[in-house]
Amino acid sequence: MFPKILVGVMGPGENASPEDNEMAFDLGFAIAKNGWVTLTGGRSFGVMDAAMKGAREGNGLTIGILPDSNDHNASENAQIRIVTGMGSGRNYINVLSSNIIVVLGMAAGTASEVALAIKSNKKVILLNQDEITIRFFKNIGTYRVMVAKTVEEVVHQIKDYLAVHQRA
Amino acid sequence: MFPKILVGVMGPGENASPEDNEMAFDLGFAIAKNGWVTLTGGRSFGVMDAAMKGAREGNGLTIGILPDSNDHNASENAQIRIVTGMGSGRNYINVLSSNIIVVLGMAAGTASEVALAIKSNKKVILLNQDEITIRFFKNIGTYRVMVAKTVEEVVHQIKDYLAVHQRA
Amino acid sequence: MFPKILVGVMGPGENASPEDNEMAFDLGFAIAKNGWVTLTGGRSFGVMDAAMKGAREGNGLTIGILPDSNDHNASENAQIRIVTGMGSGRNYINVLSSNIIVVLGMAAGTASEVALAIKSNKKVILLNQDEITIRFFKNIGTYRVMVAKTVEEVVHQIKDYLAVHQRA
Amino acid sequence: MFPKILVGVMGPGENASPEDNEMAFDLGFAIAKNGWVTLTGGRSFGVMDAAMKGAREGNGLTIGILPDSNDHNASENAQIRIVTGMGSGRNYINVLSSNIIVVLGMAAGTASEVALAIKSNKKVILLNQDEITIRFFKNIGTYRVMVAKTVEEVVHQIKDYLAVHQRA
Repeated sequence: MFPKILVGVMGPGENASPEDNEMAFDLGFAIAKNGWVTLTGGRSFGVMDAAMKGAREGNGLTIGILPDSNDHNASENAQIRIVTGMGSGRNYINVLSSNIIVVLGMAAGTASEVALAIKSNKKVILLNQDEITIRFFKNIGTYRVMVAKTVEEVVHQIKDYLAVHQRA
Repeated sequence: MFPKILVGVMGPGENASPEDNEMAFDLGFAIAKNGWVTLTGGRSFGVMDAAMKGAREGNGLTIGILPDSNDHNASENAQIRIVTGMGSGRNYINVLSSNIIVVLGMAAGTASEVALAIKSNKKVILLNQDEITIRFFKNIGTYRVMVAKTVEEVVHQIKDYLAVHQRA
Repeated sequence: MFPKILVGVMGPGENASPEDNEMAFDLGFAIAKNGWVTLTGGRSFGVMDAAMKGAREGNGLTIGILPDSNDHNASENAQIRIVTGMGSGRNYINVLSSNIIVVLGMAAGTASEVALAIKSNKKVILLNQDEITIRFFKNIGTYRVMVAKTVEEVVHQIKDYLAVHQRA
Repeated sequence: MFPKILVGVMGPGENASPEDNEMAFDLGFAIAKNGWVTLTGGRSFGVMDAAMKGAREGNGLTIGILPDSNDHNASENAQIRIVTGMGSGRNYINVLSSNIIVVLGMAAGTASEVALAIKSNKKVILLNQDEITIRFFKNIGTYRVMVAKTVEEVVHQIKDYLAVHQRA
């Protein structure tokens, strides 16, 4: 398989709930087991860190796209560290670099990534989101926005997507 | 007054409604009449263009932060053209450069600007938005998100904000 | 005249020589007197600050494209503050936004701006530079690189350039 | 070894000489054989492409930091594709993300990367460069700029650097 498939996992940092973090770990693990790369915002807490930890546990490769101009605050689970020095401006790079995006938990930075993904014609899977969030993003994103309740559903949706869109 | 006060006006491009564009024109005009600068994404259509047209009509200064690597697609109403070559990545610069942000109409790019504004601790005035949009952004932005129905209300809110936050 | 003509003035910050700063002041003043806008990296020292100070003295408009994610370290002479949060990544925006670029003094950041200007097919005027610098940039930039010894020469070169390239 | 060591290889695209490309291939191969990752600007020609081709031949991992907003023009030798949509603005990310940078051949984009590397306090190895280039960058970069004539020398310099600077 070449080039590598990058699955973006986006979600809150400091304010992630324990349930978000647990599910993010399982998601990263599942991404790794399917041979895909886990791409996140690279920080050492929240959904980013948990997803990369799960991916490492599953012997997968992890990429962190960092906001700072060095990697001092990177998660130790980020094997490849892309250092942007752009702050939240790097959210657009997270989105453009991901073949498909999974969103778990919600906060301002996360919402910007969903919106930029829709703007860039990327598929976004809203995992375990509330009704208001789903309705808002469906309104602006229509068919680009998918909804899932479990990691298994997400993996299934990614496989379906790649079956159609993966380069030969 | 020094430095100049920049009011960001964000909203849809191609898909702006005639009502959005009319209100954007009035908003730009009011911004100019108050001695403030109108900052937009700089393109030649939709809310961006209408707001700058109104500002020009009111003899105000206009700044367009352009997504392309040249100004060929800039609005003719953008007097100062900041050329970023960053595509929608420039949305973060729109937000950081604005003293306060007014949002009129909704689309994916616009939603990313509201989210990045909240993330950056900027005040955002949601002008004439629907209930789902207001609830979604209030959920993630709390006190940073204000709501208005008319241009007059917006001007009032900006004045109140500047009375407290303007540098001497 | 519409849109406004932006003349980028690039040069060292902390390490600018007194001669560089004096000439930068005169350059900013001359830019203002010709009705052009002075665009710089916006910081409060060196060539950037001196050029904007001269421009203000000449009643000209000044724009600072700032590296930080707020304007706390901006020069007080920067009237319009574009806040990028991109660090030295903003150097590319300095270059793309300028109709023509004048370089005074030399340091690493300045060299990156000359190189990016050449890459982007912009005209660069090397003002008062040493032989090595001129030869290096002529080697990679050929006709895009011009050389001047005085502010008067620079103004003359800008006028010649605009006579050909200014949009009607 | 964790996180991975990223060696940036910078050089001309279209205008690379056959000698540059040959040496870039050998350099990529040597980087891979030492267990390091090859990071480039990701395009499908010149030094970037040749270095990644060599790295693949040596079973190494390759990362391309792409200027466009999609990967259509990526080198087929770029396994991990970071899509920035920033044009030459991505040069700063190339530099910040590399543990150390090797420069082979010279052009405007390449010169901007050397300058930004010096600005960011990164070590740069100028491989097989002419006298003017070396003198110019030594003038602005002092001890951050190293010089080499062969791939073997470069590998030796990288090992020396990592022996001191690698995180445990």
